[in-house]
Parts: sequence; structure tokens; C-alpha cells
Amino acid sequence: MTNLKEIKVGLLGLGTVGGGVAKIMHDHAQKMSDTEGISYKVAKIFVRDIEKSRAKHPGLPEEITLTTDFNDVINDPEIDIVVEVMGGTSFAADCIEAALRAGKHIVTANKDLIAIERGQKLIQYAAANQLDFLYEAAVAGGIPILNSLRTSLASDKLSSVSGIVNGTTNYILTKMYEQERNFDEVLAEAQALGLAEADPSGDVDGFDAARKMVILTKMAFGVSVDLDKIPVKGIRHVKSRDIQVADQLGYVIKLIGTASFKDGTVYASVAPTLVPKTHPLSTVRNEMNAVFTSGAATGEMMFYGPGAGELPTGAMVVSDIMAIGQHIETQTTGHAFANYSQEATWREAENIESVGFFHFVTEDKQGQFLKLVKIFDDAKVSLDKVFQEPKHEAHNAEIVVVTHEMSQAQLAQIQSATQNSDELSLVSYYAVMADAK
Amino acid sequence: MTNLKEIKVGLLGLGTVGGGVAKIMHDHAQKMSDTEGISYKVAKIFVRDIEKSRAKHPGLPEEITLTTDFNDVINDPEIDIVVEVMGGTSFAADCIEAALRAGKHIVTANKDLIAIERGQKLIQYAAANQLDFLYEAAVAGGIPILNSLRTSLASDKLSSVSGIVNGTTNYILTKMYEQERNFDEVLAEAQALGLAEADPSGDVDGFDAARKMVILTKMAFGVSVDLDKIPVKGIRHVKSRDIQVADQLGYVIKLIGTASFKDGTVYASVAPTLVPKTHPLSTVRNEMNAVFTSGAATGEMMFYGPGAGELPTGAMVVSDIMAIGQHIETQTTGHAFANYSQEATWREAENIESVGFFHFVTEDKQGQFLKLVKIFDDAKVSLDKVFQEPKHEAHNAEIVVVTHEMSQAQLAQIQSATQNSDELSLVSYYAVMADAK
Repeated sequence: MTNLKEIKVGLLGLGTVGGGVAKIMHDHAQKMSDTEGISYKVAKIFVRDIEKSRAKHPGLPEEITLTTDFNDVINDPEIDIVVEVMGGTSFAADCIEAALRAGKHIVTANKDLIAIERGQKLIQYAAANQLDFLYEAAVAGGIPILNSLRTSLASDKLSSVSGIVNGTTNYILTKMYEQERNFDEVLAEAQALGLAEADPSGDVDGFDAARKMVILTKMAFGVSVDLDKIPVKGIRHVKSRDIQVADQLGYVIKLIGTASFKDGTVYASVAPTLVPKTHPLSTVRNEMNAVFTSGAATGEMMFYGPGAGELPTGAMVVSDIMAIGQHIETQTTGHAFANYSQEATWREAENIESVGFFHFVTEDKQGQFLKLVKIFDDAKVSLDKVFQEPKHEAHNAEIVVVTHEMSQAQLAQIQSATQNSDELSLVSYYAVMADAK
Repeated sequence: MTNLKEIKVGLLGLGTVGGGVAKIMHDHAQKMSDTEGISYKVAKIFVRDIEKSRAKHPGLPEEITLTTDFNDVINDPEIDIVVEVMGGTSFAADCIEAALRAGKHIVTANKDLIAIERGQKLIQYAAANQLDFLYEAAVAGGIPILNSLRTSLASDKLSSVSGIVNGTTNYILTKMYEQERNFDEVLAEAQALGLAEADPSGDVDGFDAARKMVILTKMAFGVSVDLDKIPVKGIRHVKSRDIQVADQLGYVIKLIGTASFKDGTVYASVAPTLVPKTHPLSTVRNEMNAVFTSGAATGEMMFYGPGAGELPTGAMVVSDIMAIGQHIETQTTGHAFANYSQEATWREAENIESVGFFHFVTEDKQGQFLKLVKIFDDAKVSLDKVFQEPKHEAHNAEIVVVTHEMSQAQLAQIQSATQNSDELSLVSYYAVMADAK
């Protein structure tokens, strides 16, 4: 540490991610300063309870000041970069706003904030004031997907970006699949392991994934979409039986967030989706994440890694800190992280085509199958795969149909025709992902 | 194009990659200029034969000057960036050197040159003269692995980087596995498809992968290793039968380049390796590439995509051009692409431990299996899996053994003991990759 430039960092929050950031900045200090000739130091951390925080992080260097007043961090003239790792939107936004007004560069992992207008306003304020505002860790934790989209894929025109961007739901679906267990049981286990929250709704109902899709849509296509526009379906209603039948037909059920750009229109959605077993996304197990991109030039790529966790997420936050350090050194701060913008309209759902997987239960009597096939024929939907098995209880039969591509209008027609049938009950419907090339 | 800054690019070479670069810079011009407010233009291209090049690239804009004198490109005062996409080492190095002396920034996809001392000297010269020298496309074509290692993973300490970094051999091994065909037949097919060269040695004997491992070792660990130190085994001797037996035991055979860093030592090798089917690298099929990293903080990640091809490789070259454009704009050129260096010694092979897969043929008579087991026991190597099957020809039996971890000395002892046996013949030996966590 002879005459290296030193950059001081203040943390807001010392939970999972904050703890990871502090640990990495301590353990990897030598590598970090060797890389760019800048030394980085955590100077102050805003916490709720100083004693509890010290007890929880016994390895935290003594020289780091803990404070219960966030103004101590934000207004410290020695601090260059403020790292917000508290989560939540309102208070976090207030703190970030105050930090920006005090001239601090910002790093955050806060997807909830970045995905909404308040976050976008703060980002604009930063750029207008030559301040950096980076948030690589907001999507897919340890995977450097946003940075790859904004730099290495800047030369390409992407047509779609799809991914498994919520580790909790992927863990639950993996255990349901591999251990043939049901949703409630695995959710309880995930909660016990700390992989799911006491109120699991944000994860299992797909809202967390939807926020990440807002950010991915912006980074991949340069288009800002409104979170409320994105149709979101979670995994609460995924049945063990659906998973088994999908397996027999060559699919794995995953919670897939997808966004696509076509002819000036953009569309994004989150739903449990059948992924062909030959598609790279099908191999993503447990709490791992992956983002799959399709581009005119780069073809198909996948970025796979840990979607959350103290150290993986912490590593991406620290990489953002190092990027800002370089910008400070070269006096090039204030460059927008999302550096590409274009106009696009929202593609209405009626223009979305997809392959469908329908799981019916019907009375096991002559003529039922014909009726079912006629419903699809009336909607002019042709069938790709059909699977029928008698059910032992109640003289019912189970019929599963995988279609060729159909429009949302055709899907609605089929759903309505089967709703009006006394003898035929549509147990589940899922979209089926196209196979990788 | 009102008052955008314009950056002019000269190409040396208009083969596969050069054609891709020209096409992307034309087709994606709007997106490129929208991204950073800089407009990019290919001004001149050095080719061997102007007429043939025009005929081969009918879409090439008329205003691009083709020339058969590389000095026309290098000495054009309007050209800021020279892109070398000819391949080969000696002439390419001469051209790059002349371009650097003329003050041009360099982009290349030339792994053969970057992996040797001459390339490293040119890179040093560039940095010393405030010139950029980028080569993302030199490893794993369309996958932004080098940029991810140097930026997003700068905060982490990596312990290993392994990958499928040669598309030709992965194509051959995939077809041998999936279609149960032999090496010679699939090689001939790959040559007919243009996936393998007339002289396939650079690919199938592993040398191309070894050069990429030199570059990955530098980017992942900051350590320069000598290409000649890397033990290299290609896939010529991989037998269909090995692939079948490996399959039954839960493995796929892949040509794996691997590099690891431990306690100040580094080691790298290239060899056909058994990859557990549950490891993400096992799912990489045909000519696709993937790089798998293990780090203290980020855990395990995989970057998957096209390893070669006009447009994927071209896209990474163009991303490098855009990065240089920004550096020119902000007057921050001359920053080394490989920005991290540390000292390390080469870990001698005797210190390498690995799990081994041994495939023996023996006379099918009483006592043979005992003899074999005794050889492993004498070497103090314990067995994990054993598989025996009678062979129909010549009353032989086939015995396959997968060990627990053993040292190279133990491996040598086993190999020598079986060489000295009249009744036992070691048909194949492969290292077995540890499973992902």
C-alpha cells in the first residue's frame, strides 16, 4: 500500500449481501489492488444494531465504523462509493437519493427498486450528475449477465432473452421433479433451509422473476417496460403429476422469464414452462440460475451460475465497485449502465404464438377422445404429441396433448370449449419452450 | 449521422471472421451508433485478391476500399483501429507490429499469436504506447469469456477454469457418442462439412485447445504459462468402445482444457476426459463451446455458446472495436486487456491428483480379476466403480475400473505394472472430472 490511490466505500446494510461484500473486500484486497492499482476499503457501514452486527460478523475488521445513522455514511466526505444492500424500495430509494445529492457513486443489488420508476429516476439523476450507478448483482446474483449484455453483446441484435432467474422456485421445482414430492412439502423444506422466505409469495408467485425481466428487457433490447404489463404466473399450481407427464414426453417444468423483441415490439412474461430436455436451460438444477440469449450474430448463448447467496452476489457488487474505481481514476464516471435505448411498443398477448401442453381428465368412456380432438380441430390447432393413460380412481382417463404453434386466440378458444364441457376437465395448461438450435 | 464522432476501422483479412465483422458493422450500424454515440465504419480491407473478394462478398458496401497492400490500411491516417483476422503468426505479427508503430489500436482473434511470446511482446508494446490491443474472440469465439474474467470476475479469486474450447473435436466426440460411429468416419464427415480442416491436427491433437488454455490461464489467474509446458492429448485415440463404457458408468468423454491455481502454483492440460453426466459441461453438444469457472466467491459458473463461426466470432471482434471506440472517446486507451498479474510456479505433474478410468482387456480365465485388483492395491489406489463384461472374440474379458483420487506416481505405477503383464492389456486410460457441486 505504498502510494496506491485509495477508494473508500460505505455500505448501507450488513445482511447477506452486505456481509459478502465486506468479506470479499477484506479477503481479496490484494488481488483487487493488484488488478488496477487502486486500493479499496470499506470505511463505514450503516446497520440497525451495532452490537448484533458485530456479533454476527466476528471477522469484520475493527477499523470499519458501524453506525445506526445512514447520514454518517452518506455525508462522509472521504467516502466515494455508497453500496445499498438493504433491499426494499422506499427507504432504500431515500438513502440512495441522499447519497447521490451528496455526490456519491452508487452500487446496488436492489432489483425491486431498479425495476420501478423511482429507481429509473435515480439512475437518470446519477447520469445527469456524472455519477456512476451500477447494479450487476440485481439480476441472477453471481452471473455477470448485465455486464455481458451491455458490453460484449453491444455489437449484436438480440431477439430474445430467457432465463431461470429465481433460485427459490428452481429449487422447489427441481426437488418436486427429482424426488417426486409435492409443492407444499418442498416449499416447507425450502423455508426451513432459508431458501424461501416465511412469506414466499414474491418468489413462488413469480413477482421477483418479473422484476428481473424488466431489467433484462432494458439491458438486452434497450426498451423500458412497465412491470405491470408483464403477465406473471407462479409455480403454486404446478402439480407433481404435470411434472411426471412432462418428463415422459421429454420436458422439464421450469419457471421461465422470457422477453423478446421483434419488428419494433417487445413482450415479456413469467410462467412455469415446459423446457425440452435437450435445451441447456433444462439442466439448471436446484437454486442455480441461467440466462439464455438468442442473437442475430451470436446465435444461442447461456450464462449459468449461482443466482443468489452472500459471496456470489457480493462478488458482483465488488466488481461494480472496482469498475467505478477505474472510472473515478480515469475521470469517466457518469456513463449510464444501460447504455442502449430504443423505442418499442408492447406486443399484445394476442400476437404471441406458442406451443401448448394441455393436461385433461375425462370420463373413461367411448367417444371422449374424439370430442377432445374435435375441440382442437375446431380451433385449427394441430397436435404434435398425444399421451393417454387410464386413471385408476373414478373411471377417469388422463389425456395430454402437445400442440404445434398456436395463437393466444386459439388457446382461448380451446380453453373456453373445454370449460363448457361437462365431461372434460382441463387440469393444467403450460406453454412449451422451443428447443435450442 | 449528424455530428456523431466517426471511428474508421481497417481490416487485415476478409475470410470467415473478417466477412462476419464487415457484415455486422454494416447490418448493426444503427444500434452501434445508438449505444455510445459513436459511428463506426469499415474504411479499407487488405485482401489477397480484390476481384475474388468482391465476388465472395457481394453485400460488401462499394465505399469500402479493398487493397492488396497492407500498408494502405496500416498507414491510412484516417484509420483508428486495425483488425487482424488473417490468422497465422509470422506475417500477422509483422502487420500488427507495423500497425502499432503507425499508432493504430489493434483487435485480433488470433489465438495462435496471443499464446506465444511474439504476441505478448506486441501487447506490451501497445500498452507502453497508450494503444489498445483487444482479443476477446481469440478464445471460445462468440462467448464473452475473457471480458467476463477480466471485469466481472476481477473481484473473485478463481481456483480453476475448464472448458470445451475446440468446436471441431466436440463435434466429432458428440457424433461418435450419439451415433455410435468411429473417429475416422466422423472426422471425414466434419471435413466435408467444413468443420475440420484438411490437415486436422491442430484441432484433433489438442494444440488449438492448448493455445486457448494459455490465454485463459493468463486471464483467470494473471499467470503467463509457456505453451510447451502444457501436456496435450488429442482425441485420435478415443475409441467408440470407451465412449460406450463411459456412458454406461454415467460419463461423457469430452476434450477438456483445464487450468488451476493453488498455493502459488499453476497447472494446465488438455486431454480427453470423462465428464459426469450431471456436470453442466457434459451437456455441451456438437460444435458449441463452454467455459466452466470455479471461484472462492462466485462458486461455479458456466459460459456457453458458439465457439466459432463468421457471425459469433465477428460479433466479439466488433464488441472489442466498440470498447476501443469508447476508450478513444474518453482518452483512456492503452489499458492492458489482461489487467491482472501474479507470480506463480508451474505445478509439476507429479503433484496433480485425479480420478482415473482404466479400460483393460484380459484373458477370460480364473484369477485374472484378482491380479488386476492386486495391481491397484499395490499402488494403494482404491476403486470407486468396477465394470466387467465378457468379450465374444478370443475368450477375452473387458474390465473397466474407476478409481478414487490418485497421484501421477500411483498412475505411473499402475501403468507400468500392467505393461509388464502378459495377460493384461491396458486399452485406454482417461482422467475423470470431478462433478460440479
